[in-house]
Amino acid sequence: MPTDRIRDHGGQGAPTVAAHRTRRRLRADQARQLADVLRRQLLTGGFPAGALPHESALATDYRASRNTVRQALDLLRAEGLVERLPGVGTVVVAEKYPHGLDRLMGLAETLREHGRVTNEVRTVGPAPAPAPVAERLHVPPGSDVLYIERLRRLNGLPLSLDLTYLPLDVGSALLGCDLENTDVFRLLEDLTGQPLGHAEITLEAVNADAHSAAVLQAPRGAAVLMLERLTHLADGRPVDLEFIRFRGDRITMSGLLRRDL
Amino acid sequence: MPTDRIRDHGGQGAPTVAAHRTRRRLRADQARQLADVLRRQLLTGGFPAGALPHESALATDYRASRNTVRQALDLLRAEGLVERLPGVGTVVVAEKYPHGLDRLMGLAETLREHGRVTNEVRTVGPAPAPAPVAERLHVPPGSDVLYIERLRRLNGLPLSLDLTYLPLDVGSALLGCDLENTDVFRLLEDLTGQPLGHAEITLEAVNADAHSAAVLQAPRGAAVLMLERLTHLADGRPVDLEFIRFRGDRITMSGLLRRDL
Repeated sequence: MPTDRIRDHGGQGAPTVAAHRTRRRLRADQARQLADVLRRQLLTGGFPAGALPHESALATDYRASRNTVRQALDLLRAEGLVERLPGVGTVVVAEKYPHGLDRLMGLAETLREHGRVTNEVRTVGPAPAPAPVAERLHVPPGSDVLYIERLRRLNGLPLSLDLTYLPLDVGSALLGCDLENTDVFRLLEDLTGQPLGHAEITLEAVNADAHSAAVLQAPRGAAVLMLERLTHLADGRPVDLEFIRFRGDRITMSGLLRRDL
Repeated sequence: MPTDRIRDHGGQGAPTVAAHRTRRRLRADQARQLADVLRRQLLTGGFPAGALPHESALATDYRASRNTVRQALDLLRAEGLVERLPGVGTVVVAEKYPHGLDRLMGLAETLREHGRVTNEVRTVGPAPAPAPVAERLHVPPGSDVLYIERLRRLNGLPLSLDLTYLPLDVGSALLGCDLENTDVFRLLEDLTGQPLGHAEITLEAVNADAHSAAVLQAPRGAAVLMLERLTHLADGRPVDLEFIRFRGDRITMSGLLRRDL
């Protein structure tokens, strides 16, 4: 190892290597710190012209070295949030959209002001419910449920891959509906004549497997925000179990938590 | 391309290749569908002995082919949730812990029943607040805030990397506290004599950069659940801004959403 060789050459080598390592670690830590602050700025429209200040201005503003600024911008570029344009500088290219965590809403509903949601229905039809699905939807195990698989797009860009299970009495009425252009949530409320009540959700970050990545047109291994959601009607009946993979580079989820319930 | 060559050989080739492709896509879709159902089972203790049923039993139970079952188990293995032990079968090795999304809680508090949280304090000390941080914490830009960087572990396993900013009047009192073993939330309530009020949170899924991955002892590019959280005291004052990277393979976030607010 090079380190050993340097150490072997005499007393001077080791501290120099150690100091170099500490500097590099310190710079990486500072770059992440700066990147986190800039990330929020750029995701919330903090750079209205869509261009970040010049590296030297960022270095002054954030009391960081030029090298740290460059490394922070590299981190944001690797995430697909900024790009470097020759002669222009660093520009915001993030296409991340905010999904509310405070209220139960369908995708088209929550992203209304950001554009149009369209759904490519990959599969739709009755299928026997696996036991854990049947249990959660309160239907007999093995009985048919409606299974829907949709690739959802915002303004044409792939956003999420949704696997949906619905009890057949509710689900079969959906078969004649415009699933391409309408949230299942809205259809459920129209068809049942009652509003939705609540949903239990679980969120995870996972690396996309090769096939899911291909469907979402994302690189293999891309970070995916995985949402599992069981939605109930206002009368408490569970009617919609979904497994949703959101492209991590296209969605943020925001909400408010309280200390006392 | 092989496809063209096969097509050139005569009329039989093309449909066979197309049929093969359709079958493969179909099986990948079915494998994901099965993996999603099994994932939930194994994360919620649905396989009490920690072992999954034999492949043939899963194939029967889920009306899937053996190949589909194998592919679904491959997906779960790639996520680090199960492992295959020769002579034993497929066993659950997931170490994912549930973090509540319903109530504002510190890590040690929310994971109390799962073990002991310890914090390796990587950095702690006053630092000039970057303008966006100063703005959110309601302190003058450029004034000092307390910066803390912690690698947090559950039962010794790296769980998250937390970057924390606190106003100096509150923060400096924390310097004498046991940051290694205590949530900042609990210390804030002890020191200010008032409970926390609420927090604005944003969740994202990102691929870990090389340095963050190394700190978290995760593979480069590993999916990370990134949480940004601004916490306020009960009187409304913002006191704690955090940027948290959770290892995606170690945490799930669960909560309840309502349709009407």
